[in-house]
Amino acid sequence: SVSRDVDETLIKRFIAEVDNIQIQENLRELTSVPHMATTAGDEKTVQYMLKRWRDPESGLDDAWREEYKVYLSFPDHKSPNKVTVVSPSDEVLFAAREKEKAYEPAQDHPDVVQPYAAYSPAGHPKGKLVYANQGKVSDYEYLSKTMNLTDTIAIVRYGGAGRAAKAINAAPFGVIGVLVYTDPLDINDGRMSDADETYPHSWYLPPSGVERGSFNTDFGDLLTPYLAAKEHTYRIPESDITGIPPIPTQPIGFEDAYFLICALGGQEAPANWQGAFNCSYNVGGPGFKTTSLFNSSDVKLDIYNKGELKNSSNVMGVIRGSVEPDRYIIYGNHRDSWVHGAIDPSSGTSVMLEITRVLGRMVKKGEWRPRRSIIFGSWGAEEFGLIGSAEYTEEYYSKLRDRTIAYINVDISVFANATLRVQGSPAAQSVVFTATKQVKTPGSDSTSVYDNWIRFFNRSSPSHGLVPNVAFLTGAGSDYAAFIHFLGITSMDIAYTYDRSKTKARIYPAYHTAYDTFDYSSKYIDPGFTSHQTVARTAGNVLLRLADSLLVPFNCSDYAESLEQYLKTALENFNNRLAEKGISMEPLKNAVEKFRTAATNLNLMIRDSALATETPLKVRRINDQLMLLERAFLDPLAFPEKFGFRHVIWASRSSSVPTFPGLADAYARAQESDLPQDWSQVHKHLSIVMQAVEGAAHTLEDVI
Amino acid sequence: SVSRDVDETLIKRFIAEVDNIQIQENLRELTSVPHMATTAGDEKTVQYMLKRWRDPESGLDDAWREEYKVYLSFPDHKSPNKVTVVSPSDEVLFAAREKEKAYEPAQDHPDVVQPYAAYSPAGHPKGKLVYANQGKVSDYEYLSKTMNLTDTIAIVRYGGAGRAAKAINAAPFGVIGVLVYTDPLDINDGRMSDADETYPHSWYLPPSGVERGSFNTDFGDLLTPYLAAKEHTYRIPESDITGIPPIPTQPIGFEDAYFLICALGGQEAPANWQGAFNCSYNVGGPGFKTTSLFNSSDVKLDIYNKGELKNSSNVMGVIRGSVEPDRYIIYGNHRDSWVHGAIDPSSGTSVMLEITRVLGRMVKKGEWRPRRSIIFGSWGAEEFGLIGSAEYTEEYYSKLRDRTIAYINVDISVFANATLRVQGSPAAQSVVFTATKQVKTPGSDSTSVYDNWIRFFNRSSPSHGLVPNVAFLTGAGSDYAAFIHFLGITSMDIAYTYDRSKTKARIYPAYHTAYDTFDYSSKYIDPGFTSHQTVARTAGNVLLRLADSLLVPFNCSDYAESLEQYLKTALENFNNRLAEKGISMEPLKNAVEKFRTAATNLNLMIRDSALATETPLKVRRINDQLMLLERAFLDPLAFPEKFGFRHVIWASRSSSVPTFPGLADAYARAQESDLPQDWSQVHKHLSIVMQAVEGAAHTLEDVI
Ligand SMILES: [Ca+2]
Ligand SMILES: [Ca+2]
Ligand SMILES: [Zn+2]
Ligand SMILES: [Zn+2]
Ligand SMILES: [Zn+2]
Ligand SMILES: [Zn+2]
Repeated sequence: SVSRDVDETLIKRFIAEVDNIQIQENLRELTSVPHMATTAGDEKTVQYMLKRWRDPESGLDDAWREEYKVYLSFPDHKSPNKVTVVSPSDEVLFAAREKEKAYEPAQDHPDVVQPYAAYSPAGHPKGKLVYANQGKVSDYEYLSKTMNLTDTIAIVRYGGAGRAAKAINAAPFGVIGVLVYTDPLDINDGRMSDADETYPHSWYLPPSGVERGSFNTDFGDLLTPYLAAKEHTYRIPESDITGIPPIPTQPIGFEDAYFLICALGGQEAPANWQGAFNCSYNVGGPGFKTTSLFNSSDVKLDIYNKGELKNSSNVMGVIRGSVEPDRYIIYGNHRDSWVHGAIDPSSGTSVMLEITRVLGRMVKKGEWRPRRSIIFGSWGAEEFGLIGSAEYTEEYYSKLRDRTIAYINVDISVFANATLRVQGSPAAQSVVFTATKQVKTPGSDSTSVYDNWIRFFNRSSPSHGLVPNVAFLTGAGSDYAAFIHFLGITSMDIAYTYDRSKTKARIYPAYHTAYDTFDYSSKYIDPGFTSHQTVARTAGNVLLRLADSLLVPFNCSDYAESLEQYLKTALENFNNRLAEKGISMEPLKNAVEKFRTAATNLNLMIRDSALATETPLKVRRINDQLMLLERAFLDPLAFPEKFGFRHVIWASRSSSVPTFPGLADAYARAQESDLPQDWSQVHKHLSIVMQAVEGAAHTLEDVI
Repeated sequence: SVSRDVDETLIKRFIAEVDNIQIQENLRELTSVPHMATTAGDEKTVQYMLKRWRDPESGLDDAWREEYKVYLSFPDHKSPNKVTVVSPSDEVLFAAREKEKAYEPAQDHPDVVQPYAAYSPAGHPKGKLVYANQGKVSDYEYLSKTMNLTDTIAIVRYGGAGRAAKAINAAPFGVIGVLVYTDPLDINDGRMSDADETYPHSWYLPPSGVERGSFNTDFGDLLTPYLAAKEHTYRIPESDITGIPPIPTQPIGFEDAYFLICALGGQEAPANWQGAFNCSYNVGGPGFKTTSLFNSSDVKLDIYNKGELKNSSNVMGVIRGSVEPDRYIIYGNHRDSWVHGAIDPSSGTSVMLEITRVLGRMVKKGEWRPRRSIIFGSWGAEEFGLIGSAEYTEEYYSKLRDRTIAYINVDISVFANATLRVQGSPAAQSVVFTATKQVKTPGSDSTSVYDNWIRFFNRSSPSHGLVPNVAFLTGAGSDYAAFIHFLGITSMDIAYTYDRSKTKARIYPAYHTAYDTFDYSSKYIDPGFTSHQTVARTAGNVLLRLADSLLVPFNCSDYAESLEQYLKTALENFNNRLAEKGISMEPLKNAVEKFRTAATNLNLMIRDSALATETPLKVRRINDQLMLLERAFLDPLAFPEKFGFRHVIWASRSSSVPTFPGLADAYARAQESDLPQDWSQVHKHLSIVMQAVEGAAHTLEDVI
C-alpha cells in the first residue's frame, strides 16, 4: 500500500539476523590478498562482490560494474624508492627500509606495495636534512627565521597538516624533498619496541610500519575535474594538476626516522615539536650533528613513482523500491585498500555484505521490498582520492540530485570497539537516534548503542537536552564527500571508535600499513566481530528507516539548531569587527530566524497531518521538501577554488572558528590583511550564506 | 480527483471569454503615462497590477510586490546629453536633437526620457568622426587598415552587434566615443519623410525617433551577480562591472545621423555598409569632407548619465493548485517601458491581465482551480537588463528549480499581426502545437493559428513531417533568459509577428522610442486588438494545459530530434578536423543515441500506461522526469565567462554554426588560432556536452 509505514517487526528481524561470524568470514575472504586499486587483488574483490550480490538466495535485484579510466600513481617495483644518507664522498652510510618487517605470512605477500607517497613526483633530490615538525606553513616559517631552507630535505611527522600540504608548504621555502614518518608519540602512545610493545604483541605499530597515502588535496580523478573519467573524456595535462607535492616525497617508518632525527644538528626544536624518541629533536644545522656518524652528509631521495591511467571499477547493486522506485537511499563503502585493508576498508565492506545478505534473503524470498530503492556502491580507488564515488556523482549528477534521499557511508566500520561515532547532516540526527536506541552495544543485553554513545560524545541541545553529538560533515575523509559537498545529499558516516581516555593515537596504528590484516583486526580491533555486527545493525537500521518510512525521517528543526549554533559563533566572533567595517550581520540573523520559523511550521503541519490517510501526493510533497532541503545549500560558485565543494554550510574550512566556512575563512583573511577588498569578500560570503539559508527556508515554507 | 485531466470544455470557455476590447482598455490604462523602471509612472502600474490581481471578482488568490535595490543608469534631466559638431574655433556648427518630435500629446509628456544609452559612462569626448558600419570587431578592423582610429568618434548603425558591443569593440582601437543611430534601411524599408511616409502616416519611424536601450552584455543587476539585490546584499564596485561601454555612447535619430554621415570624408565605405541615405556613406577622413560645412570640425559628445541604486518591484500573483500545489507554471511579462511602451511591454501586460481576468473569475466563482499552481510575474526593470526576473530567480533559486514545470514569457505580444512566432524548448513544442490548433488566427473563422503559422515559419521534422518552426531559445532577449539559461526551466516566448515578405524592418519601427504609444499600436500594429486576443488565447491555452494536464504535456522525443539536428550539424562541420586532431566525436554520437533510446522508451511506457488509473505516485514520477529533463542540461561551470548561462544546449553562441554552443565557439577559436590548448578546449566542451546529454538520458531511463 502506498501509505505503508516502516515495519518495526522487520527492523527487529533485521537486527536479529545480522551475524558477527558472517562478517568475520566476509572479512577473511576480502583480505585474502592485498587489493590495492586496479590490481589483480582488486579485481578479485570485484568478482567477489558481484558473486555475492548476484547470489540467487541472498543477492540483490541487480548488480553490475562501472568502469572509469583514472589517473593513479605507483612506485616502480623494479626500481624501489630509496632514502639514503650519503657522505660527502658519496658513500651510502644509511639506507631506509624498502619494505615493512613481516610478522605473519600475509605481511610478506609479494603484492604488498612498497610504502610511497602517491602523486609525489619522481626525482633524486639530495640535501641537508632539517626537522620541520608537521610540515605546516608556520613550521617552515619558524625554521626559516634561523636558517636558509634552500636545497634542504625536510623530515616531518604525520598530523597537523594534510599529506600533500606538507610538501606544498615546503617548496616555496626552497625545500627540495620531504620525508614523512609517524612519530610513536602520535600513533603508539609512545611505545616503540616490537620485542614486547607493538604488534604482534598489541595493536601498536611496529617500528618498520609506514603509513602510505594519497598525497593530493582535491577529491576525484585529478585529470577530469567535474567530468566522469570515461575512455574519451577530456583530460587536463598532468602539468596542470594542482594540490599534489611539487617536490619528491616519501614516507618512512619511525625505526628509520629515529636514526635521522636523533642525528640532527642545529638548535633544539620547540617543546611542542618533540616526539617520543629518546633524544632531543633538533631542527638540523641544516644537516647532522658534527658528532654524529652522519656528520656533513646529505640525505638523498630516489623516487621512481609514475602516474598511470588505469581502469577502476565501482560495483553497484540495487534493490528496487516498490512504491517510490524513483527515490534512492544510497549506501556505500570503498573496496580498495593500500595493502590487505582488513580495517580500511574491508571492515566496512564485510559489514555492507552482511547487510545485503540479510536484506537480499528477504527480497529473494518475496518477504519484503522497500518502499524506496536502495543502491549499494562498492567504490573503487578511494585511497587515491575518493575517485570511484566522485566519478559516479559526476556521471549521474542530475539523476542522483533529483532522487536521492540520503547517502550512508561506512568506510572503516570499526576503528576501535568503544563507542559509536557519527558524522552527518543535522537533518539525519533523529533517524540515527531512533536506530541507535534499538540496537544494543557490543557485550551488553541492556545498554543501547545510544546510551553507550552519549557517555563518550555528547552535547547539550537547546531543544533536546543532553544528546549524543553527531559531528558535522565538514571534511572529505571518505566517499561521503562527493555526496554531501558536491551533490548536496543528506549524508552520514558511521563507525565504532576509540575510548579517547585510553589512547591518544591519531588513528588506529596499523592504518595504511602492511599490518592492517585479518590477524590484526581479529586480535586487537574487534575480537569476535561484535562491534562490526553493531555497526551493521545500526547502519542497516538507519537504511531501513530511510527506505521504508512513509515520511522521510529527517527533522528540519534539527537543521535550524545547527544553523543557530553557527550563527551564534559567527556573531560572537565577527559581529563587532564587521560593524566597524559597516557590514551588517542582521540579514544573516533574519535568514536563520526565517529558517527556524519555516522549520517549526513544517513540523507542526506534519504533526497535525494524519499522513497515513493523506493523499500520496501530499506526503510526497513533504518528503520532497525534506529530501531537497540539503540541496538548497548548494552554491556552485561559492568556492571556485575548492574543487567539488558547493555546500555553503559544510564546506571545508581553514579558519579555526567553527561556523559558516566561507564567512569564517574570508574573515580570517581580512583580519590578517585588513585590506578593503578582503573585507568586501567577507561581505560577499555573508551574502552568499544569507541567500543560501533564506533559499533553504523558502523550500520549507508552504509550497505556494 | 487526483487523476483529473485537462478539461477541454474549460479550454473552449477560456478561449471564448478572452476579449479584445478588454485588452484594448488594459492597454489604454497601462500606457496613460510613461512608465520607465522605478519612476512614478512605473509605481502607477505596480498599483494597477495589484488592484487588478486583488480584485474580489476577477483577481487571483494572492498578489504582492517584491522589491530589489538595483543599479540603473539615467541621463541627467537638468543637463541633457548633447551631440554637437564643433569647429576648430570652438563654434557649434550643429547640435543633434535632445528630444523626439511630438505628433500627439503623449509624445510630449514631460516624463518622456531623453534618448540615451543606459550604462554609457559620462564624459565629453571630442574627435574626428568615422563611420564604422554596425560596430562589429570586423568593422573596426576594416577601418583600421587604412586609418588610425585613435581619438576618433565612431558613428554606427543599430544591428549586427549588441548595443554594448559597439562601444566595447571600439575602445581597443582608440575610439573615444560612439554614436548609434537607426538607418532607415534597417528599420523603415528605406522610408524617411514624416511628410507622408513615416508615423503618423504609417508605422515607420519618424526622422527624429531614437531607439533607447540598455547598453549591457549580462542580464540581471550588474552589481549583484548571482545574489538577489536586497538592501544589504554585497555589491561589487562599479569599477568592476564588465560588459558595458568603456567610452561615452549616445543614440541619435536618423534625421541627425544624415547630416553627419553625408558630410563624412575619406573613402567610400563598402557596399554592404551603405544605408538608405541619398549620399555615399564614406568612412571619414577621419572627419568631414573638406567640401562640407563641417570641414575640419570635430564631433563632441557631452554625456551626463549617472548610475543610481533604485528600488524596482516585481508584482507577483498566484492561483494555488488543488492537487499538486508544489508544481508551478510561471507566466511572466515585464512591466517597465522606456517611454509609454504600448507595444514593449504593455502589449504583453494587457494580454496577461486579460488572461488573469478570465481565470480569476473562474477561481473566484469557485468554478475552477488548476491542478498545479500558477504564478504570474510582472517583472520590473527588464529594459535595463532583465533585472526583475533575474533577481527573482536568484532569490528563489532552489524552490523554483525543484518545482517549476514551465515558464511562459509574453513580452511584446504583438510585433505585427501576420503570424504566431514561438521560441522555446523542444520539450514544449507539442503543447504549443496542440494549443495553436484550437485557436483561430485573427480575422478568420476557419484558419487556426497553427495553420497560419506553418505558412510563415516551417521546417521538415524527421518524425512529424512539415511543422511550424519553434525557434531555439538561445538568446537573452527577454525575461525567459534567467528561467531557461540559469534555472534550466522549460521555457517559451510567444508573440504575433511580421510577414517578412512585407517588411525588412529589424523590429517594429517605434521600438524603444517615444512613438510606442496607444495611438501607434491601435492604428498600425493591431487595429481592433485581435492579434493581442489571439496571443492571449494561445498563451493562455498553453498555460492551462501545463497547469491542468494529468501528464505534463512535454515530449522528450522532440528534444531528441533537436539534439540530433545539433549533432548532425556538429558532425558535418567539425568531425573531419577533429579526427585530424585526434578528438573523437563518437562519445557525443553515442550520448545522443542513448538519449533518443531513453526518450523512445519513456514515450512507449507512457503510451502503454493507463495514466488515469495509475497510482498518483507513478504519474508523478513520470511528470518529474519530464519536468526535470531540462535541468539535466545545466552545468554551472560550463561557461564561467558567460554570466547566468548554464544550459549547455541553449547558451548563447558567437559561432555561426548552429549547434552545441560551447563546442561551436571553442571550435571557431581553435580553427582560428590552431593552438594546441584551444583544441584541448574543443575536446573539453565535447566532453561537457556529452556528459550533459548522457546525464539527461539517464534521467529519462527507467528510474531504477
Ligand atoms: Ca572526474
Ligand atoms: Ca543579482
Ligand atoms: Zn577508507
Ligand atoms: Zn584509507
Ligand atoms: Zn520588452
Ligand atoms: Zn524593450
